Amino acid sequence: MAYTAVELIEIKRDGGVLPLDGIEWLIRAYTDGTVTEYQMAAMAMAVFFNGMDGEELAAWTSAMLHSGDVMDFSDVPAPKVDKHSTGGVGDKISIPLAPLMAAVGIAVPMMTGRGLGYTGGTLDKLETIPGFTSRLDPERFHSTLVEHGLVLAGASGTMVPADRKLYELRDATATVPSIPLIASSIMSKKLAEGLDGLLLDVKTGSGASIKVLQESRALAQTMVDIGAKHGVRTVALITWMGQPLGREVGNANEIRESVEVLSGRGPEDVIELTLAFGEVMMEIAGIEGGRERLKQAIDSGAALEKLVEVAVAQGGDPSVIENPDLLPTCADEAILTANRSGFVTRCDALTVGVAATRLGAGRDRKEDDIDPGVGITIEAKMGDTVSTGDILARVRYSDPAKWEAERDLLASAWVIEDIPPEPQDLIIERIEAGN
Amino acid sequence: MAYTAVELIEIKRDGGVLPLDGIEWLIRAYTDGTVTEYQMAAMAMAVFFNGMDGEELAAWTSAMLHSGDVMDFSDVPAPKVDKHSTGGVGDKISIPLAPLMAAVGIAVPMMTGRGLGYTGGTLDKLETIPGFTSRLDPERFHSTLVEHGLVLAGASGTMVPADRKLYELRDATATVPSIPLIASSIMSKKLAEGLDGLLLDVKTGSGASIKVLQESRALAQTMVDIGAKHGVRTVALITWMGQPLGREVGNANEIRESVEVLSGRGPEDVIELTLAFGEVMMEIAGIEGGRERLKQAIDSGAALEKLVEVAVAQGGDPSVIENPDLLPTCADEAILTANRSGFVTRCDALTVGVAATRLGAGRDRKEDDIDPGVGITIEAKMGDTVSTGDILARVRYSDPAKWEAERDLLASAWVIEDIPPEPQDLIIERIEAGN
Repeated sequence: MAYTAVELIEIKRDGGVLPLDGIEWLIRAYTDGTVTEYQMAAMAMAVFFNGMDGEELAAWTSAMLHSGDVMDFSDVPAPKVDKHSTGGVGDKISIPLAPLMAAVGIAVPMMTGRGLGYTGGTLDKLETIPGFTSRLDPERFHSTLVEHGLVLAGASGTMVPADRKLYELRDATATVPSIPLIASSIMSKKLAEGLDGLLLDVKTGSGASIKVLQESRALAQTMVDIGAKHGVRTVALITWMGQPLGREVGNANEIRESVEVLSGRGPEDVIELTLAFGEVMMEIAGIEGGRERLKQAIDSGAALEKLVEVAVAQGGDPSVIENPDLLPTCADEAILTANRSGFVTRCDALTVGVAATRLGAGRDRKEDDIDPGVGITIEAKMGDTVSTGDILARVRYSDPAKWEAERDLLASAWVIEDIPPEPQDLIIERIEAGN
Repeated sequence: MAYTAVELIEIKRDGGVLPLDGIEWLIRAYTDGTVTEYQMAAMAMAVFFNGMDGEELAAWTSAMLHSGDVMDFSDVPAPKVDKHSTGGVGDKISIPLAPLMAAVGIAVPMMTGRGLGYTGGTLDKLETIPGFTSRLDPERFHSTLVEHGLVLAGASGTMVPADRKLYELRDATATVPSIPLIASSIMSKKLAEGLDGLLLDVKTGSGASIKVLQESRALAQTMVDIGAKHGVRTVALITWMGQPLGREVGNANEIRESVEVLSGRGPEDVIELTLAFGEVMMEIAGIEGGRERLKQAIDSGAALEKLVEVAVAQGGDPSVIENPDLLPTCADEAILTANRSGFVTRCDALTVGVAATRLGAGRDRKEDDIDPGVGITIEAKMGDTVSTGDILARVRYSDPAKWEAERDLLASAWVIEDIPPEPQDLIIERIEAGN
């Protein structure tokens, strides 16, 4: 049956259900330019208002993922499981987690992205390793996975072209915060990786793109249902992003902290999420041993060795992993101190993320450069007790004028009070298909 | 204050009220291409869902009308009053009405359009007069009004460019049926005519673009309020468009019927609407004499003479007005007959309009040509009694294959039953500002 863009927009505008072959046609015609950007903009806004049901969303996601090349790792005997995070501040979990998974026998074909806005990007962090390249052609992506059990790279230009076009369009038309559009964008990219299983880390709280638990839950449920409809075992964990994860925010800083975690040190929250995610991914992959086996992989150095291995395979200089003091840093350091004594009751993720971005750790527009050495080391987090004058954070910056401009904003992230804050669970909920 | 398109779309998407200077910027930036078509498409869809309040709509309309040249007729001493119809089937009222108004001392600077879809266009009808041109430059438009008290032409390319762009975009993005967008489109064009007063004929029923009375009422109220905010006395009449107006549908046919009305003959409904609209326009203009004076202007031949005068002024051959048999016609004529006896209880405007369009009297896409001689003469309308075999309609066509294809559709417009239909008022409601 033949459709026109106007007919399909009308259906969605009026709250109807799009025909599944109409969705397939729409995404294909949008990818090849038959359906114009302005027609897709109108459709995206209609979807913002009227949503999509499970069948529509599965068809939409499938059409997106088939708009370009789809990876095929059927020649890799290990279970292929990836993890995706909706993004947070100080969220470097992928970096220790992927090598840890490879060390226990899970193949991780991770296609990941750069940071935009105040949430960091895994590729930006990895590229602080001198020589490391995230631009791998499909053959090298494939061979890296086969040889090392993991690969950490950007999506190739031939994969999910519909999503790249649509994401840019949504960014320019205020149609980003739509759960079906977010879910299909993420899942089309992940399903194009040819996975057996997928762990979704859906952040909630001030530093997350979705700040309200109920919406994070809806997004998580939507994504696991799409995964299930595509035959990929998908589990979502909703995790708290009210304060930055770990002590380090900034690209080189986060590599340093990731190496610490793989060396058996590092902050408790990062260790906990890495192990918890690892356990779920092992469960998804059907691999025995759980947390004990993960700890052994860290204690034995096998996981850290995997990070060195993949860094070298992707052109990186492994000496910065062995000696993180060689990572890029900024010459200038400032400190923020407590102006009273008490309990830290807030260390706001969004505020820290925005300040780090403005200092150069992130980018507002995708064509902006980042400054790999800019970083914030957090010395006092929620629940800690501090005295007047204690250091709250150390800040590495390269532009003193920017630091002057952002100092007050960054300081406003901390609230110190007389009574301790309520404890907050890091992992709030687990969501599986059809719950 | 500076805005971005994304910020403004977000406000409307989230149900907020757009800042008035933001609206002004948006329309200006859209007209000059700074705001893209896809951003405006997303905005139009957000307006479809969340509407605009009176202040927003006045600012939106004002920005549209000031996107190009605005007529200035302050040197014309007569009151400037125009009439606009939302469009119907057989709706030729502008053609007898404008000369009649000129004959009683009202200046009518009518900028009108071509037909699209099943509703006819005044310009298409006028152009069946050989030589008649609707393309007047602003000087000739002005001088025609000054010399003859009326002018009937298309909008110049330099007027309301924002509306022309936006209308095309809405047509391609399923954002046409939005009351604020319809109202601001119509009113921006009419207010650019430099009027003192405006009569709006808002059609309702099957042959109208808005078929539900409640929505026609909302559109009428929205438009009269915009007019009032711009200091133009605006009255709307909601009129019934369930069956075609008059006996004639088709371009040359409707000129013939218009001449009949100005000659003191013609069908009762066309005469009634012409006189009723004329009375309201005289009231708006502050001109005494009412219906009696209008009848005199017809009986004396003054109104018909005005039609001849303007036709000549715009290059037309007046002999077709003096002798309408000289108007273009098609060689072939077919008849439709009643298949039973009884009362005509339906003569559906939409069905007749669609059939006439498909036979060539109208166009589906604006680049299509029309066939000026194609026409349907309706011999039996609602409430008439017919016997089996009586003629319901005579059809002039030039393509026998098209007639074969449309015959059944056209026949389905009529329903004949044993009991007469309920009488239907032609003028349903009068709506003024702030009602």
